[in-house]
Amino acid sequence: MSAQDPRPIGVFDSGIGGLTVLRALRARLPQESFIYLGDTARLPYGSKSPQTIRRYTEQNIRFLQNQGVKAVVIACNSASTQFRDREWEGLPVYNVIDPGAREAVRVTSRGRIGLMGTRATVSSGAYEQTIRGLKQDLSVFSQACPLLVPLAEEGLDGDPISNLIVFRYLQPLMQQQIDTLILGCTHYPLLEGSILRVTREDVRLVDSGAAVAGDVADDLQSGRLQPTNARGTTKLLLTDDSEAFRGLSRRILGPDFTEPERVDTV
Amino acid sequence: MSAQDPRPIGVFDSGIGGLTVLRALRARLPQESFIYLGDTARLPYGSKSPQTIRRYTEQNIRFLQNQGVKAVVIACNSASTQFRDREWEGLPVYNVIDPGAREAVRVTSRGRIGLMGTRATVSSGAYEQTIRGLKQDLSVFSQACPLLVPLAEEGLDGDPISNLIVFRYLQPLMQQQIDTLILGCTHYPLLEGSILRVTREDVRLVDSGAAVAGDVADDLQSGRLQPTNARGTTKLLLTDDSEAFRGLSRRILGPDFTEPERVDTV
Repeated sequence: MSAQDPRPIGVFDSGIGGLTVLRALRARLPQESFIYLGDTARLPYGSKSPQTIRRYTEQNIRFLQNQGVKAVVIACNSASTQFRDREWEGLPVYNVIDPGAREAVRVTSRGRIGLMGTRATVSSGAYEQTIRGLKQDLSVFSQACPLLVPLAEEGLDGDPISNLIVFRYLQPLMQQQIDTLILGCTHYPLLEGSILRVTREDVRLVDSGAAVAGDVADDLQSGRLQPTNARGTTKLLLTDDSEAFRGLSRRILGPDFTEPERVDTV
Repeated sequence: MSAQDPRPIGVFDSGIGGLTVLRALRARLPQESFIYLGDTARLPYGSKSPQTIRRYTEQNIRFLQNQGVKAVVIACNSASTQFRDREWEGLPVYNVIDPGAREAVRVTSRGRIGLMGTRATVSSGAYEQTIRGLKQDLSVFSQACPLLVPLAEEGLDGDPISNLIVFRYLQPLMQQQIDTLILGCTHYPLLEGSILRVTREDVRLVDSGAAVAGDVADDLQSGRLQPTNARGTTKLLLTDDSEAFRGLSRRILGPDFTEPERVDTV
């Protein structure tokens, strides 16, 4: 039997969207413990500059390092564009871009991949570069969707307003006859109903958050990370607390929800 | 001739919306100089908790104090709910709630006042309390409009999407037969086209930002503030800089636009 490491895995996002990644990690790795940090006092990141996003990302990784985690998952695409290294001072770090890009390349049938993301994620070009690095003859069509994070935070999946806005964003991608669509923001699974109304069965959806859970699971298997066989726990830390954040967290996490604790990272 | 004070007036907001207040101040007081601080690295404030908004507000006031301003205008309703004092360590401070509430009381014809604001502004109850403190027998109907700030930042005034969302928010207020509507967020003048489509000529709009410019002008007249008769200048400081912020700033300020400078307030 291999060595055990009961330390938690750190997960962070600008806010609440990354809880969809935590949910995927919990489902895949029920024996592991997690500390989730939502930087709600400074959300969103997707409309901010690369320099500011990088600074916030480093502060969050350092904060989780000080909490004694054994690895950090960047559960935010905008933050992932600014931190692609596989480690930070010896601590393994996972971004959502690499597994999302790999999954898109794996599932595409006709090599026409669409990307929805925040303005920061789309303008970074991170997905296109990574996808073309994996396979050169693929086409990637990108669409910045700045209104989707607030719609997801308002819990408006399936609402006519969301359907209309999602339709407008996806229409140019559908005209390019994409066969695969990367949900390049961890909030977007919260609008899956509205997205599926536009894409229907024609397009394969790739959830980068779910894809990164697979990478962490693989590394626990291969020995890059040491697993634990305890009964996993979840701790939620938010830099700003409010009833709205609690309500949305409760809805995303279901039975895994625990009352969040407010913390300062800087 | 009274004493002169060439020091600038400080103006701050969580982001870009407060530029509508700066525009009103510039138009009213062309001889005064202004320093505008947009806390774009942490925007928006309206979805955050009172404690966090208060902390950011104090940091911004202190920052402007250190820049040597002669007064501070809080060009953000969410921040104004957390700082109602008329001064900070001897420095005159203006919030947008008091002048907006006074103006609504002045113009209402049938005593039925509507309020649109961020979640933070509406849940603070600041407008209702202030209005009832001025005149007890008025009715105030409030509506939190969390999606309007992102729509304004996307420049979508008059777009069918904005019209639909504004209609949904205003419908309950219109059913209360309001005669006056407070634009309780400095972003909302940027959606005036969509708002007017719903309110038409039946409802008087109150722009708190324009109202606060009147208060500052009065105080320059009365001697609470010393005026200057120089040719006024404008300086823009942002805690995060991006092409999107620059574009929107240029559109709001027109000929008063100057290239913003990035600063850290903490």
